[in-house]
Amino acid sequence: MTRPTVRLRPKAEARAIRHGFPWVYADELVTDRRTQALTPGTLAVLEDSERRVLGLVTVNVGSKIIARMLDRDPEAEVDADWFAARLGRALALRERLFDQPFYRLVHAEADGLPGIVIDRFGEAAVIQPNAAWAEAHLPALEEALVRVTGVTTVVKNGTGRSRGLEGLPEETVVLRGGLSAPVPVPMNGATYMADLTGGQKTGLFYDQRPNHAFAARLCCGGSVLDVFTHVGGFALAALAGGAERALAVDASGPALALAEAGAKLAGLGERFETRQGDAFQVLEALGADGARFDLVICDPPAFAPAKPALEAGLRAYERLARLAAPLVAPGGYLVLCSCSHAADLAAFRNASARGIGRGGRRAQLIHTGFAGPDHPILPQLAESGYLKSLFFRLDG
Amino acid sequence: MTRPTVRLRPKAEARAIRHGFPWVYADELVTDRRTQALTPGTLAVLEDSERRVLGLVTVNVGSKIIARMLDRDPEAEVDADWFAARLGRALALRERLFDQPFYRLVHAEADGLPGIVIDRFGEAAVIQPNAAWAEAHLPALEEALVRVTGVTTVVKNGTGRSRGLEGLPEETVVLRGGLSAPVPVPMNGATYMADLTGGQKTGLFYDQRPNHAFAARLCCGGSVLDVFTHVGGFALAALAGGAERALAVDASGPALALAEAGAKLAGLGERFETRQGDAFQVLEALGADGARFDLVICDPPAFAPAKPALEAGLRAYERLARLAAPLVAPGGYLVLCSCSHAADLAAFRNASARGIGRGGRRAQLIHTGFAGPDHPILPQLAESGYLKSLFFRLDG
Repeated sequence: MTRPTVRLRPKAEARAIRHGFPWVYADELVTDRRTQALTPGTLAVLEDSERRVLGLVTVNVGSKIIARMLDRDPEAEVDADWFAARLGRALALRERLFDQPFYRLVHAEADGLPGIVIDRFGEAAVIQPNAAWAEAHLPALEEALVRVTGVTTVVKNGTGRSRGLEGLPEETVVLRGGLSAPVPVPMNGATYMADLTGGQKTGLFYDQRPNHAFAARLCCGGSVLDVFTHVGGFALAALAGGAERALAVDASGPALALAEAGAKLAGLGERFETRQGDAFQVLEALGADGARFDLVICDPPAFAPAKPALEAGLRAYERLARLAAPLVAPGGYLVLCSCSHAADLAAFRNASARGIGRGGRRAQLIHTGFAGPDHPILPQLAESGYLKSLFFRLDG
Repeated sequence: MTRPTVRLRPKAEARAIRHGFPWVYADELVTDRRTQALTPGTLAVLEDSERRVLGLVTVNVGSKIIARMLDRDPEAEVDADWFAARLGRALALRERLFDQPFYRLVHAEADGLPGIVIDRFGEAAVIQPNAAWAEAHLPALEEALVRVTGVTTVVKNGTGRSRGLEGLPEETVVLRGGLSAPVPVPMNGATYMADLTGGQKTGLFYDQRPNHAFAARLCCGGSVLDVFTHVGGFALAALAGGAERALAVDASGPALALAEAGAKLAGLGERFETRQGDAFQVLEALGADGARFDLVICDPPAFAPAKPALEAGLRAYERLARLAAPLVAPGGYLVLCSCSHAADLAAFRNASARGIGRGGRRAQLIHTGFAGPDHPILPQLAESGYLKSLFFRLDG
């Protein structure tokens, strides 16, 4: 093997890496001219400052995360067999958890594939190669994916925000097979239509599955307002769980059209209504009309994706809670979600509680949900568990 | 009304109380001789430092929480009707959530009844009056409980740790009806035997219900080790979910006898085995034997109930994880639980991850669960959400 070697600085902490921490930050690595010259995504052997081998990493000198641990074996060959072993292990967890092949199959670092996300939709899979090494090894990954799962269609979705940080271009292409229409996805008794090539992210957000299920328990026979519904997220699950009617709000016309198609396919169309528009404006208008719902959900995009946006993001979450709380019927339920990395659970909960209070209501917190188990995390990176869903019951 | 008045000190923050914070700490209240003389549990009108009325509180000058908010109406009469209104509201949430009348009916502050816990077991209910006012109003509470729920047996369980802080004696008595034997409790497809008068706490820990259910999904066809099983907690749920066999460990012989009775009643007895002993010693012995299980759970009593015990508690959690991790089969699951108020989620997760690493294993964190929704919390007290259950998948 003639792999290049990269080395930790004398003060960098090798212990965390030995115990499974998967990243080396730029200021922890000796970045001499030779390292600077490495093509982004190059595989290299990582050593500590005393030249003891730590394992195989991928290096991207243009990224704040300058090296990502791939294998404790520095001589591991990263080929289709290597990918197949990791995919097989990832698949075993999902097959234990789910009856049908619709799930996040690979959740990056925690599944041993740094920067790679793969969502599975039955016979189709969507790969997000969000790190340079993944882009470089895409053919081997694709081959392994087909071998391990038997999928016939593979899409590469190159729209992830992190691709920019890695210096990768935006592009979405069908690598194998073909797609003539959105894919129907069964989840929580509802059907969602996922647009695998033109939708947001990989076409569907699997992460909210357990939170959709919990919300569906709360509203049998009642009315639902689902704000930022995307392709029908909470609303369709609640209807499948017995809600009487649901109003779903989103800024995206195409997403709402998919939501309506999903509702129709599951025979829920007559109880399902959509409204296209800005969420804050729609909430204000509904408030002015004195509208009331037994269950109100706000599942917005990340208002605080990174630290500089934290304060403004928390104010936006608070405002959302303040506008949504008055729309909840007495004794009804309010579900507030955040997928902001920068807003931790306590900060988001405080902003939400403040907003509910300013909306003139008092609340019990009955449940806190995170992303589903097909989104595992490394304990060492658990602080970044991004998705938080808070379930409040409001006063009567 | 001739209720006494108590007053916040000039610097005490009345805003939090106006927004729903339910407690006044001893250093926030003017404790003149008149206030000092109030019998623990006395109802009083709380005013801010400028004599604006904040609401009705119960006062206990012997407690660090010197006043607890009962009602925003300072003239509310705390009688059976008052209790019935709160109980009705609490019942409505549980009836929405559960098909059968087995749940925590009242979870103290969040259900508007500070210091009062009530667990329901079908036709029976166990009250824990953990604050002085509750003890004083027990007859009205009992009357309302029977009226609202129709229970025929009511037990007062006075063993709570917090009763000592309130200056209340330990005693458990049957207030109404009678109990000739442990009560069978259906939960997650299993049956648990709850000893309502002689067991730990109210006889059963309902808080782990969703975590039992999640664990049961992980082990179909496999083997289970349930350490600190109490009356069969995780083990019986896993067997009901299809686990092939379970070994349940506890220091308490009576608890294990109840677990065995529950297993038998559900027809799971042949797959269920118990071992009485110290958990750490049993784990060490199993490790020395090279035993392996597909699912290992450690659900110990609180190692860090309060701040002074935090460091020792975290060390105990780490040690438990270190001893348990090697017993998990390759690719199997480890569930680590903490009901310690003082150990927050991040501290407990770090101790657990460290222990798993020192046990020679690496892990994905696939799920973080808290107490079930029949244990609501006030958002203002959410930091004290005590129960954390971490679900790890270990390396293959």
